Amino acid sequence: MSYRSAGVDIDAAEHAKNLMTVAVRRTHGPAVLAGIGAFGGAFALGATLQKMTDPVLVASTDGVGTKTMVATAVGRFDTVGQDLVNHCINDVLVQGARPLFFMDYFAAAQLDPLMVERVVSGVATACEAAGCALLGGETAEMPGIYMPQAFDLAGTLVGVVDRAQLITGAAIRSGDVVLGLPSNGLHTNGYSLARKICEPIGYAATPPELGGVSLGDALLEVHRSYLPQLDTLWGAGLEIKGMAHLTGGGIINNLPRVLPEGLSATIHTGTWPVPPIFAFLLRSVQLDPIETYRTFNMGIGMALIVAPEKAAAARAAVEELVVIGEIAPGQGVTLV
Amino acid sequence: MSYRSAGVDIDAAEHAKNLMTVAVRRTHGPAVLAGIGAFGGAFALGATLQKMTDPVLVASTDGVGTKTMVATAVGRFDTVGQDLVNHCINDVLVQGARPLFFMDYFAAAQLDPLMVERVVSGVATACEAAGCALLGGETAEMPGIYMPQAFDLAGTLVGVVDRAQLITGAAIRSGDVVLGLPSNGLHTNGYSLARKICEPIGYAATPPELGGVSLGDALLEVHRSYLPQLDTLWGAGLEIKGMAHLTGGGIINNLPRVLPEGLSATIHTGTWPVPPIFAFLLRSVQLDPIETYRTFNMGIGMALIVAPEKAAAARAAVEELVVIGEIAPGQGVTLV
Repeated sequence: MSYRSAGVDIDAAEHAKNLMTVAVRRTHGPAVLAGIGAFGGAFALGATLQKMTDPVLVASTDGVGTKTMVATAVGRFDTVGQDLVNHCINDVLVQGARPLFFMDYFAAAQLDPLMVERVVSGVATACEAAGCALLGGETAEMPGIYMPQAFDLAGTLVGVVDRAQLITGAAIRSGDVVLGLPSNGLHTNGYSLARKICEPIGYAATPPELGGVSLGDALLEVHRSYLPQLDTLWGAGLEIKGMAHLTGGGIINNLPRVLPEGLSATIHTGTWPVPPIFAFLLRSVQLDPIETYRTFNMGIGMALIVAPEKAAAARAAVEELVVIGEIAPGQGVTLV
Repeated sequence: MSYRSAGVDIDAAEHAKNLMTVAVRRTHGPAVLAGIGAFGGAFALGATLQKMTDPVLVASTDGVGTKTMVATAVGRFDTVGQDLVNHCINDVLVQGARPLFFMDYFAAAQLDPLMVERVVSGVATACEAAGCALLGGETAEMPGIYMPQAFDLAGTLVGVVDRAQLITGAAIRSGDVVLGLPSNGLHTNGYSLARKICEPIGYAATPPELGGVSLGDALLEVHRSYLPQLDTLWGAGLEIKGMAHLTGGGIINNLPRVLPEGLSATIHTGTWPVPPIFAFLLRSVQLDPIETYRTFNMGIGMALIVAPEKAAAARAAVEELVVIGEIAPGQGVTLV
């Protein structure tokens, strides 16, 4: 990775670069081959393959959308990188894969080395927590393409799963149980609407619903990675038949993506705690229930489908799992 | 991939989406597992691994920089996707790796489905030519982040190489020969300066150097992929000790990245044909030689280092290879 100094004190820029290098290196296990040229990152598959019979790579590319604009408004840059990585981790988890390595792309009208360091170190923090190598990336300065002060952050995660463990949704049956893993806020979706509501008030505001927490803090809560929870469930040998990461389109649009033809999910709203930020946002804008559950995750970050006889064991293994619904004949998602 | 229609005729949008789907599917060989959910793309490694003893994944993330602004100005959107893929292919080739799959990221202030189709189909065209799967991607519409009419295009290529075939540059010795593979123009670097020169004149202009070709056409020439040339060289069993993809920073900054400590490259300018676009650009702006060869590739897209006794065989196998210099004690690149 390289960046240009843009009128910033060179010692501070140098210091930022060193911090970033240290953060990135901390994500490098023995699979990352160093010193073989700087054109691409190299990841040796040897140790990974020893545990597998028919490995399948699962890749996800994502951005964090306009959550970056909240970060800019609040002036906090160490969280969006974590959002990005965790979003991608959840996207490969739903197919049964675990993360191997990540590549990031950061672009802005002007590169501020201190800001780049904060963002990339956030990427590295989440990679390190997931045992995932931050293998490489690209930073680009493009004044004619980006608005002044704006930046975009995208990335690609590559994970791996043994073919027999791929989660396809094919085993889902009527009567199966839908479990939910709680979100801690908007994760990375619904920010266009949230910004429209919050910008006029200001991100320092502390509406009563938030109990002293500012809008900025609530909106910048880091998108949760559900890798630890899935590690526990898989470690306990619990079969998960299907999973949906509730991103853009919410439970309404995402859960049907894993349901076999002829099956629907009935979701009992009110069976899980909804983070207070949603109460505030919904007080400020009129949305019908369908639109609400399509725009926001409404407190559930990931939905898991298990056989009914496995639900109790799953909840015993991961306490925060909530029963939120069940599978029935039909199509799509029905909110009750 | 998904996109929203932005006031575009819905049949045209639907048609564009179908075209895109067909183009993407054409890149899918048997390794791409379909129908396992839409959260991430899945690529089975089985067939790849059968040919390898110790596989190493090599990944590269890149953008096409402000070449997208030339595309927008000219109104031609089918080439930048090819630029992006070929750029990434060359980045993994220099380490000896071949492409497996690609993931793209397209973002703009407003998504025009017809334009997205053109761009993504360009990505698919280059992937198909390289036998590389376009496994997935993301499109994002972010009016507050991108300038009106502007878009950004980035992507990640994952390739693979058997560890014994990794090209590290370690075998490079004094007396080795530097060969060059010709570029067909700027590839993806030097566009900020080129736009500054060309925008006032207009991209339809046909300066005498270009022999009837317009500035727009010359500047949108697709970044070459050197996969066919490398296939031929590797197929002939020719050892390449080191390779540099001449992107941002040109031969001055990129060639030293593969040279072992204590070795330098002497490059004989004038030994290869320089595409006419460079003659035009250099007539329009004053640059010293170092700055010229740092800003532009000046006609060489890839530099290859081989043992002196291999140079003739390499040139016999790939006719367009040119001897452009040699390795000597020292450091960096010396232009003579």
